[in-house]
Amino acid sequence: MEISDWRRKIDELDEQIVRLINQRAEAAKAIGQLKQKDTLPVYEPQREKVVFDHVRGANQGPLSDTELIHIYERIIDVMRSLQKK
Amino acid sequence: MEISDWRRKIDELDEQIVRLINQRAEAAKAIGQLKQKDTLPVYEPQREKVVFDHVRGANQGPLSDTELIHIYERIIDVMRSLQKK
Repeated sequence: MEISDWRRKIDELDEQIVRLINQRAEAAKAIGQLKQKDTLPVYEPQREKVVFDHVRGANQGPLSDTELIHIYERIIDVMRSLQKK
Repeated sequence: MEISDWRRKIDELDEQIVRLINQRAEAAKAIGQLKQKDTLPVYEPQREKVVFDHVRGANQGPLSDTELIHIYERIIDVMRSLQKK
């Protein structure tokens, strides 16, 4: 495969990744609303630890756990600010 | 749905997201090797612009383009350092 073939593959993967991240955001928003209703805090460090552990457990590479968590820290940041809206 | 149900859904989504990000990393690694063979630069701002435009085009919300690009900047950072290895 040439660079252009791999790039086409990346574009297809990005469409799927964008869709899934948005589905994750829908779920985070729903949780945010339930938290607001029950006056629970948005920031729950214990739950975030569970998410990171789950991500590490699901990681089959080639990314290292550190690289993947680096990406997930940004995902979680964005989701947290979504819940605060 | 309660918070615990949404969290189960998030865990399932994360498993899919982790798999797709790793597939994206495989493709980025393959491109990195082809670039090395042809002594092409790892950093290609024009291609990165195409990726961001594609991500914006695929975005159907609820995340804003800004929030999604914020996540993708981190994904691209990690992929770029992968190609430099």
